[in-house]
Amino acid sequence: MSEKGRTISSEPTVRDLGEFALIDRINAGRTQAPAVRLGPGDDAAVLSAARGQYVVSTDMLIEDRHFRLDWSDPEQIGRKAIAQNAADIYAMGAEPVGYVIGLGLPGDTPVDFVTRLADGFWAEAARAGGSVAGGDIVRSAHLMISVTAFGDPLGDRPVTRSGARAGGTVAIAGRPGWSAAGFELLVRTHGVLHRYEDSVATAVVAAAAAHRAPKPAYDLVRAAMATDNPPEALTDISDGLLADLGHLAAASGVAVSVDSTRLRDPELELCAAELEADVRQWILTGGEDHVFAGVWEPGVTPPSGWTPIGGIEPGEGVTVDGAPYRGSGGWEAFSGTDSAKSDHSR
Amino acid sequence: MSEKGRTISSEPTVRDLGEFALIDRINAGRTQAPAVRLGPGDDAAVLSAARGQYVVSTDMLIEDRHFRLDWSDPEQIGRKAIAQNAADIYAMGAEPVGYVIGLGLPGDTPVDFVTRLADGFWAEAARAGGSVAGGDIVRSAHLMISVTAFGDPLGDRPVTRSGARAGGTVAIAGRPGWSAAGFELLVRTHGVLHRYEDSVATAVVAAAAAHRAPKPAYDLVRAAMATDNPPEALTDISDGLLADLGHLAAASGVAVSVDSTRLRDPELELCAAELEADVRQWILTGGEDHVFAGVWEPGVTPPSGWTPIGGIEPGEGVTVDGAPYRGSGGWEAFSGTDSAKSDHSR
Repeated sequence: MSEKGRTISSEPTVRDLGEFALIDRINAGRTQAPAVRLGPGDDAAVLSAARGQYVVSTDMLIEDRHFRLDWSDPEQIGRKAIAQNAADIYAMGAEPVGYVIGLGLPGDTPVDFVTRLADGFWAEAARAGGSVAGGDIVRSAHLMISVTAFGDPLGDRPVTRSGARAGGTVAIAGRPGWSAAGFELLVRTHGVLHRYEDSVATAVVAAAAAHRAPKPAYDLVRAAMATDNPPEALTDISDGLLADLGHLAAASGVAVSVDSTRLRDPELELCAAELEADVRQWILTGGEDHVFAGVWEPGVTPPSGWTPIGGIEPGEGVTVDGAPYRGSGGWEAFSGTDSAKSDHSR
Repeated sequence: MSEKGRTISSEPTVRDLGEFALIDRINAGRTQAPAVRLGPGDDAAVLSAARGQYVVSTDMLIEDRHFRLDWSDPEQIGRKAIAQNAADIYAMGAEPVGYVIGLGLPGDTPVDFVTRLADGFWAEAARAGGSVAGGDIVRSAHLMISVTAFGDPLGDRPVTRSGARAGGTVAIAGRPGWSAAGFELLVRTHGVLHRYEDSVATAVVAAAAAHRAPKPAYDLVRAAMATDNPPEALTDISDGLLADLGHLAAASGVAVSVDSTRLRDPELELCAAELEADVRQWILTGGEDHVFAGVWEPGVTPPSGWTPIGGIEPGEGVTVDGAPYRGSGGWEAFSGTDSAKSDHSR
C-alpha cells in the first residue's frame, strides 16, 4: 500500500515474515475445490477440465485506481478482486473452478493485511465457486492484485457476446448503478456516511457496500444455464450498461434497443435525490456492479429473477427509448472523461 | 514506465490511443494457437484441454524490480515475461497452449513500446508453444506485467517436484549462472559492455543476453517426456539451483547430493575472472536462467542434452560435494541478502 495507507506499528510486516512463510500463512487451513488437482507449492497448479475445454479471464486491480485503502477494508478488496473475475467466467455461461493470484506488496505491508485480503479472496470464491490454486507474490511500491480465473462451461459450450439475433429479448440480472452511486457517495463524503437521513440511510449504505464489494448474481446465471432455453448471448457489465451492450451488439452484428422505464430503481433514485446526482447516468454507464446481460431467442421468456430491459433488432449500435444515448458511454482505462466510475486516481 | 524511462516526444502514447484501440493494435495480425478456441474480445478466452486437465502458472514482473528499461528493450522484457511462465509449465512436464497477460502502463507510455513488448510476448510464445489468448490493460504508475500460462501435460500426468526417490539421478538442462553473471555485468558496467577484451567479449555478451531474455531449454524437456523413462520429478530453477533443489528434496522427502565438478563452466569462469566474481555463487544460487532440473529413477540414464550433476539419497536437504552449502540460498521476494539476482530495486 502507498505511503498514506501505511501502518506505523510493531505488527509484523511481509518483509519480516518473508515470501515463503507468507505464502504458507495465507494458504493455511484452506480447502481446495474439487477441480483443483494440485494446489499451491509446486511449479504450477493442476486443474481438471470436466468438459475438455475451459474459460479463462484475467483482471488487474491497482491501488488508488481500482480501490482505495481508506474506503475499503482488505476483505472487501479481496472480494472485489475475485468477484470481477468470477463475473467474467459466469458471463461466458461457465462456473469458476479456480483462481491464481499475483500480488504486488510493499515490504512494510502488515502480514495481517495480507491474510485479511486472502480471507476476502476465499470468501468470494466460496460464493462464486472454485478456490485459489496458486499465485505469485512480489515486492512493489503500491498494492496491486492480478487475478486469473478458470471455469467450466455450465452448458455444452461457452456463451459468447456474439450469439444475439434480431427479435431476441435482452434481460439483466442484478441492479445496475449501485456501485457508481456508492463511488459518488464515497467521493463526496470522504467515506463518512452516517450523516444521512434515516429515509435514505439504508440505500446509502447499500450503495457504498456495492462499490466496495459488488455481489454479482452468479446464481441467476447458473439458473438460466440450467433451463431448456439458455441465453444465446451473455456478457457482464463491467464498462457500463450501454458500453457493454454496445460490445454485444457489435459482436453479434445487431442493434440493441433499451427501454429505460424497465431500469427505474426507486431506492437508487432516493440516493440520487439526496446527492442531486443523475440516476440515469449511474444506471446506464455505471459498470462495476457486474450485472449480467443476456439475450434470449424470440419467443422465450427470460427466467425468474432476470429483468427484461429491451430487445434485439436488425442494425447496429444501442438506442435508449428509441434514440442513441448522448451521455458518456462508460469506462475506458486511459480516458479521464467518465464520472461514474472508480477511477480513483483522477 | 517510470519517470526516468519516459520518452518526451510527439509519438502517440497509450493515453492518446485509448484502451480498446491499443488492444486492437497489439493483437493485429496475430495467429492464435490451435488450443485457443476463442481469443481476445469476449468476456473470457476459451481453451481446449486435450487431456482433461491443465497446468496453470502465474508470475508478476515489476519495473525496476524484475527488469530495467535502461538495460532491456521492450522485446527482451516481453520475451522474459513469457519465458519465466512457460518454464514453469515445462517444469510440470507440460507444454504451454496459451497465456493471458495483465499489463499496467503509465498513460504516457508510447504505443510503439507496447507493440514491441507484445512482439516479445509472441516471439517467445513461438519458441515455447501457445499464444496470447487474452488480457487486461490498466493505467498504473509503473510498468508491470502479470502473465498466466496454461499447458497440456506432455505425458499421462504432470510431473511434480515430489516424485524423487533415493538412488535416482539428478540432471539439468541448460547452463546455470549466466543470468546472474549478466546481472552483475550490467550493474558494474551500467549496461555498457563494449570495453571488454576480445577473449571474454563473447561470454560477456552472452551473459548479458541471458539476463535480459533467458532461453529455457524447452526442447530438452519435450525430448525427455517423449522417452520411455521420463523424469519422475521435475522443476525449473527460478530461485537458485540449490534453493530449488532444496524445494524438490523437501517435497519428495529425500536428500539431494550435488557434485560441483559437473557444474564447471569454463566460459562463465572467464566472465568471473574478468569481474573478480565468484563463479560458484553464480552457478549455485543464480536462478533466472530457468534451467530445468529432473530426477531419473535408479538405473536410467538421463537423455542426451541433460547433464547429470548428482543423485538422490535418503535424508533431507541439499549437499554440495558432501557438505551442506554455506552460501546464500537464492532468491526470496522480500529479502535483500542475495547478490546474484536481479532485484533491481536494491
